[in-house]
Amino acid sequence: MKLWKNSHPSLELNNLNIENINQRVRDAQYAVRGELVTIADQMQKDINSGKRTDFEKIVFCNIGNPHAVGQKPITFIRQVLSLVEYPEILNNPNVHLLYPEDVIERAREYVEGSKHGIGAYSNSQGFDFAVKDVANFIEARDGYKADLNNIFLTNGASEGIQMFLNTIIRNNMDGVLLPIPQYPLYSALLTLLGGTKINYYLDESKGWGLSVEELNDAVAKARMRNINVRCIVVINPGNPTGKCLDVENMKEIIKFCQRENLVLIADEVYQENVYVEGMKFTSFRKVLLDMGEEYNNVQLFSCHSVSKGFLGECGQRGGYFEIININGEVRDQIYKLACTRLCPNTLGQLVVSMMTRPPKKGEPSFELYEKEKNTILNQLKERSLMLTKELNSIPGIICERPQGAMYIFPKVELPIKFIEEAERMGKKPDFLWAKHMLEEAGVCVIPGSGFGQKPGTYHFRTTFLADQDSLRDAVQRMKIVHERLLKEYS
Amino acid sequence: MKLWKNSHPSLELNNLNIENINQRVRDAQYAVRGELVTIADQMQKDINSGKRTDFEKIVFCNIGNPHAVGQKPITFIRQVLSLVEYPEILNNPNVHLLYPEDVIERAREYVEGSKHGIGAYSNSQGFDFAVKDVANFIEARDGYKADLNNIFLTNGASEGIQMFLNTIIRNNMDGVLLPIPQYPLYSALLTLLGGTKINYYLDESKGWGLSVEELNDAVAKARMRNINVRCIVVINPGNPTGKCLDVENMKEIIKFCQRENLVLIADEVYQENVYVEGMKFTSFRKVLLDMGEEYNNVQLFSCHSVSKGFLGECGQRGGYFEIININGEVRDQIYKLACTRLCPNTLGQLVVSMMTRPPKKGEPSFELYEKEKNTILNQLKERSLMLTKELNSIPGIICERPQGAMYIFPKVELPIKFIEEAERMGKKPDFLWAKHMLEEAGVCVIPGSGFGQKPGTYHFRTTFLADQDSLRDAVQRMKIVHERLLKEYS
Repeated sequence: MKLWKNSHPSLELNNLNIENINQRVRDAQYAVRGELVTIADQMQKDINSGKRTDFEKIVFCNIGNPHAVGQKPITFIRQVLSLVEYPEILNNPNVHLLYPEDVIERAREYVEGSKHGIGAYSNSQGFDFAVKDVANFIEARDGYKADLNNIFLTNGASEGIQMFLNTIIRNNMDGVLLPIPQYPLYSALLTLLGGTKINYYLDESKGWGLSVEELNDAVAKARMRNINVRCIVVINPGNPTGKCLDVENMKEIIKFCQRENLVLIADEVYQENVYVEGMKFTSFRKVLLDMGEEYNNVQLFSCHSVSKGFLGECGQRGGYFEIININGEVRDQIYKLACTRLCPNTLGQLVVSMMTRPPKKGEPSFELYEKEKNTILNQLKERSLMLTKELNSIPGIICERPQGAMYIFPKVELPIKFIEEAERMGKKPDFLWAKHMLEEAGVCVIPGSGFGQKPGTYHFRTTFLADQDSLRDAVQRMKIVHERLLKEYS
Repeated sequence: MKLWKNSHPSLELNNLNIENINQRVRDAQYAVRGELVTIADQMQKDINSGKRTDFEKIVFCNIGNPHAVGQKPITFIRQVLSLVEYPEILNNPNVHLLYPEDVIERAREYVEGSKHGIGAYSNSQGFDFAVKDVANFIEARDGYKADLNNIFLTNGASEGIQMFLNTIIRNNMDGVLLPIPQYPLYSALLTLLGGTKINYYLDESKGWGLSVEELNDAVAKARMRNINVRCIVVINPGNPTGKCLDVENMKEIIKFCQRENLVLIADEVYQENVYVEGMKFTSFRKVLLDMGEEYNNVQLFSCHSVSKGFLGECGQRGGYFEIININGEVRDQIYKLACTRLCPNTLGQLVVSMMTRPPKKGEPSFELYEKEKNTILNQLKERSLMLTKELNSIPGIICERPQGAMYIFPKVELPIKFIEEAERMGKKPDFLWAKHMLEEAGVCVIPGSGFGQKPGTYHFRTTFLADQDSLRDAVQRMKIVHERLLKEYS
């Protein structure tokens, strides 16, 4: 045995090291929580401990994490969850001193509906009642009934996207059309699953519009490389662009999907986040079904989340997805994948249920719910306007007002000498720029290279979630640092 | 464009269907939530609606889901979570009417420690304080300090296992040693990740003992097929076997790992579930570190969960893993994977924190906590004894008393004619047997083929979680059905 062992070539090197692990894991990139955020976290720790005194706090604009920058949770949701975690309290006469009647009722309903409480695994699609709530929400939104079999609750939207791509992608000859710029979860998942990314560029000159000619080009080029193009990801409202698609554009995209036999992955997690007067979100599902039977071979995956909108309940990891025009056999395979992770966390499922079935008019919690909702959405709108204006006041920074979502993706014109300096250091220029912003202005934004951008252009993504004053101060400090950089490298 | 399109061979067939999705997803099997459970769920629904009257209820023995079969949550845990979900209540003077002092204190600590509450994403390893609680728990258990960098909180233990295997497995030439019988998550994940399963058989004649000769054989055979054997999974206490390894055996396994350069994946989620007098759980980590510096090249992954033990908080999806002797570069890659899913759900993290830092002696909740814990563990022990005895009273069913975990894995001797009948139907004999038990005895157990078994032997896995009376009645009905089958097919 011993001798034979030593003769095996790979054996001695088999201990796990960076060279012999899964290359796809090494290749995956996810800038939203990358190197800069690690530095920012350390800076904040140093501020907290008094080690660092140059900033009062780091302004975190790197991630759509509303509660982390001061947004308050919706009272109704937390009150219900509080009771469901400890249902004993429902039998305590003092419960009425602390909770409104409709909260108590909803909590009772969840305790009974979940049958065994929230400590048991639910079924793998999610609690029956929560799946029904989602179906009713979708029907009310779109005017078309939803099939309960085709709705899956998930740990945030990310998990559903991962399951679906895992079901589709077979090998590196399978391709997925990804917008550039895109939310980097998609590129990271594709890398991990071993599929091929096919970039299509959003048009910055048209407010990050999506043109079907660009899609045609991208597909044609991919097919010339013998890539089997299987689906397209569309994020609407856009992340990181804030762009909201109009219905005509969506119809063109659906026609494109039919023509090219592509599954449409519609990331609609920002559907509540539309800030332009007179503009409203329309789901790809509604547009598709409005187009009639002729399009019932277009396959659609659509996801939603409790992390965005006005709930901002990121930590509770709730989400769902729905599949349309996908046959039962494929659905059963997705179900099996869902089973291997047993169930989405039960509290997150209840948040999905409440997001899709909020208090109704006349119920005790209705007014507060509406007030909290409107306050949050109005603040986001105001902040998006203010931040757009302030950023545009910095020389060499250009951005359009975001129509929706939680982000602005401004272009930064960098001096050639700065770019050369970055290259000398082996860093991406936009990364180096964002690092300056972090270390000298105390603002954590993500370089555009984390989302993709046209070669030779530089961007960054910032959220507009922090409070007005923090954002205004942040952008003032960025202005000073940026102007200094312009001078230094002119 | 049009003509070119039609000339593309794969295009018309590109719409998703069962033939053109990821074969690895199709191949993955997870019997714990398979076909039988779908039938059982429907039967229970029919009972609830009055459509079916032959059984009072289905006795679900298919899955370690304690709350679903009547186990009550630990009061302290739920009280704290209740307050953390709705921290406003901490400022209400009536809060003292409803919650003990140490619960209020712990909730305050979590609200402050999480900084932004549980609605924000935490960092991807988990809340700092929760990681520290885990480290302290591990240190107190093993007598060796734990490195905070190497502890990751997860959505249940499953997610951590998935992340780690994803990091290791490169292609189908990478192999993982899996026990037979095994918890089918491992085989499902390996299939999904495209790695190769290498079976090693546990020895039923020695109470499902693990012999190193068997491991040597399995590795040797795999290497002859040029498989690069990378790690071994050991489940201790065993699922589905209930076997607890003794320290001498664990040392042998560690020596084997060193000799063969294998990473040891220690699934220790049942570490609280040991029922034999005088026997106690020892972690692989402690055994490894006790063996001294000479073994510091043995790489270890160990996971734990809030779903098992006496908490049984499956639905809250809390867990953690720790990696030992794994270098920082590899650790950073695992961290990146953790980042792509943003964070484990925050409530589950708090349950991990409380599991690893329960109320201390002298605190108001201590006595109740201890009482609830001991009641649950004693009941599990009693049920395991009762069920073993009752099952052994059925002719042709043989099982040993489980030393730990939540399962018994009895052997069933099936008549040849029954086996032939199953084969005629294209069914696995143990599946057909379990289906009879479900449909005629109202008991949902999982056939041994879902876990793996020696060819020509038949088993099933049952939990011993349901209450004594339900279990006793269930086994009586199984006895009647089984005896009828013996007669019918003799």
